[in-house]
Amino acid sequence: MRLLHPAIQNGVKKGNPAFAGGTLTCKCADKPVKVKVAVNIAHNHACGCTKCWKPAGAAFSVVAVAPTDQVTVVANGDKLAIVDDKALILRHACKVCGTHMYGPVERDHAFKGLAFVHPELFDKDDWPEPGFAAFVSSVIESGVDPSEMEGIRKKLKEVGLEPYDCLSPGLMDYIATWIAKKTGVLQ
Amino acid sequence: MRLLHPAIQNGVKKGNPAFAGGTLTCKCADKPVKVKVAVNIAHNHACGCTKCWKPAGAAFSVVAVAPTDQVTVVANGDKLAIVDDKALILRHACKVCGTHMYGPVERDHAFKGLAFVHPELFDKDDWPEPGFAAFVSSVIESGVDPSEMEGIRKKLKEVGLEPYDCLSPGLMDYIATWIAKKTGVLQ
Repeated sequence: MRLLHPAIQNGVKKGNPAFAGGTLTCKCADKPVKVKVAVNIAHNHACGCTKCWKPAGAAFSVVAVAPTDQVTVVANGDKLAIVDDKALILRHACKVCGTHMYGPVERDHAFKGLAFVHPELFDKDDWPEPGFAAFVSSVIESGVDPSEMEGIRKKLKEVGLEPYDCLSPGLMDYIATWIAKKTGVLQ
Repeated sequence: MRLLHPAIQNGVKKGNPAFAGGTLTCKCADKPVKVKVAVNIAHNHACGCTKCWKPAGAAFSVVAVAPTDQVTVVANGDKLAIVDDKALILRHACKVCGTHMYGPVERDHAFKGLAFVHPELFDKDDWPEPGFAAFVSSVIESGVDPSEMEGIRKKLKEVGLEPYDCLSPGLMDYIATWIAKKTGVLQ
């Protein structure tokens, strides 16, 4: 069975709903980048998109959001660079080890003001567990054989992560509502 | 309860899996546009996107595909115009009544060579029934209140149309596979 992600492969460990943030550290042994998240994370989920950072061998990332103004680079920020400045999520990666440390959304979008972070990089391991799996079909674009998809969706369901090929219905409705308000269709 | 679509509101009527095509007719009493589809349709589904043509008052369209080379305008084609020539689906609508008659995909895409058609416009009513609901969250962008979404997804499930906020997993995998082959990730 393909490795989905170390944090979900053998079942999802329940986290602390009152998690109060912590410090994310990159994979460098020398002068690691450190990023402080001062509050709890939200919307933690597995993500199969081709752009999210994944640990070695994993088909999915695990990624959540926190308000960007609660996210601060606290050590070795000179090692950070933006992976793709055209992307919605401005993923800031360590230039040495490649780990994505935080990805703010700055463009006019439903997610503006939020930064995407990978909770497995926290110095504590009781962060709130992932709640669903997003962009599942996209793992094919990273080289997963289409014949594996049935097993992957089954496994995700088994560990309690409902698979979606976009985001979860709640988040998709949230985005659609934001667009409807912006276009004036909803007040 | 909001009208989802006349063909699904009171349950989905089983169609003929061996449906052999037919003629689509627009809503004009005078000189209607007629489009012949010479073969069966595939992937019939309900669609909540803002671009698909919907009958009066309906939140969803019902739309399927057929090979573009099997779709022929047979009457009053001078009344047709492309709704948006930048869109993936080149929806050809009747300029008088507004009905979308066919929408070919001509751009380099997984769906190239297919045309989207609305089976309710056929002269027969035994076309294969819709099998799922796509772009469900998008109905909010057409003015559906977000508070209605729970009921809408529940109703779709009741009539046997699994709701997705993009396309179905099978079609999403198909698109991802096409992209992976194009980029060389898969052979």
